[in-house]
Amino acid sequence: MFSKLIIATGNNNKYREFKQIISETAGNNFADEIIFAPELAHMTVNETGHSYSENSMLKATAWTQRSGLPCLADDSGLEVDALNGAPGLYSARTVQGNDNDKVSHLLSQLKGCSNRNAKFKAALCLCVPDEFILITEGLCSGTITESPRGSNGFGYDPVFIPDGYNQTFAELSGSIKNKISHRTDAFRKLKAILFK
Amino acid sequence: MFSKLIIATGNNNKYREFKQIISETAGNNFADEIIFAPELAHMTVNETGHSYSENSMLKATAWTQRSGLPCLADDSGLEVDALNGAPGLYSARTVQGNDNDKVSHLLSQLKGCSNRNAKFKAALCLCVPDEFILITEGLCSGTITESPRGSNGFGYDPVFIPDGYNQTFAELSGSIKNKISHRTDAFRKLKAILFK
Repeated sequence: MFSKLIIATGNNNKYREFKQIISETAGNNFADEIIFAPELAHMTVNETGHSYSENSMLKATAWTQRSGLPCLADDSGLEVDALNGAPGLYSARTVQGNDNDKVSHLLSQLKGCSNRNAKFKAALCLCVPDEFILITEGLCSGTITESPRGSNGFGYDPVFIPDGYNQTFAELSGSIKNKISHRTDAFRKLKAILFK
Repeated sequence: MFSKLIIATGNNNKYREFKQIISETAGNNFADEIIFAPELAHMTVNETGHSYSENSMLKATAWTQRSGLPCLADDSGLEVDALNGAPGLYSARTVQGNDNDKVSHLLSQLKGCSNRNAKFKAALCLCVPDEFILITEGLCSGTITESPRGSNGFGYDPVFIPDGYNQTFAELSGSIKNKISHRTDAFRKLKAILFK
């Protein structure tokens, strides 16, 4: 499909996750070469959009402008029912600090709360220069644990148990996470449009 | 492809233009029913984006949210070389007033100027609820006349002569304009993705 595809992220964990999602969902048909180009992350994109879709588009189009190559970007968030959907769209920005700080903050907000339902949402945007911009959204429903468990993944993975499983995203293998995750759900929709 | 498709505009001229573009480019395969729903234009969408693509997306997603149906929106502008690309992205907003006022303002800016090269650019965004958002861009190159000619079309059509023709967009029949216009160029790319 594409000879070169850049994953628009400076985060190596996210890059490796996407590489696995693409290879498990589309085999080798999607891109000959999937590129990590953290040097292009130097200019931060202002994620000023009002939806995951808009933010993913701002990111993908900026990276395509910098590289001249097809770029795949994502924007995602965790929406917790008992917090009226927070941290949501602003997951990356609500709490200063690293992933551990964010997880701790979330657990303290949910202390004593019996409704632990939540969903991960993601929008993926594929920008192909002079051709098209394609955006899809995906989700993965689950529950929030009482304390962090596991060391795989990143972000809120250690406190999120996807429906139908007993382990958190950070305890499950990448291969299982990448069959059921919000990003995979969105990527399948993207593939469905492009390969039909 | 779609049983119902809303053209996201309150402008009847634009609606009819799109209806013609779709029928001439894709026959009856694109949508069973192409809907004009000016009552959904009541809440203006703030076209605050920094590109035609972003603006078309803001419009299409807002209309889909209001209607629950697939919506096709566009954002377009005229870029004049001698004015460094103005009025461009801000075509609709640079000059208060109606189409005539805008045309007069443009001609006065170009008075005595021998470089009359310009291009119309358009981004189309098709938003299909729970499935995808697809954006393509198109362009049509031409020159700006010394004075307005013709009464078809809208906007800057009376002063724009597309390359390869001697008449303005407002003198050419809708059927010819809709074979060569920036919107048609963008629509063909949209169709190429969806029908492959």
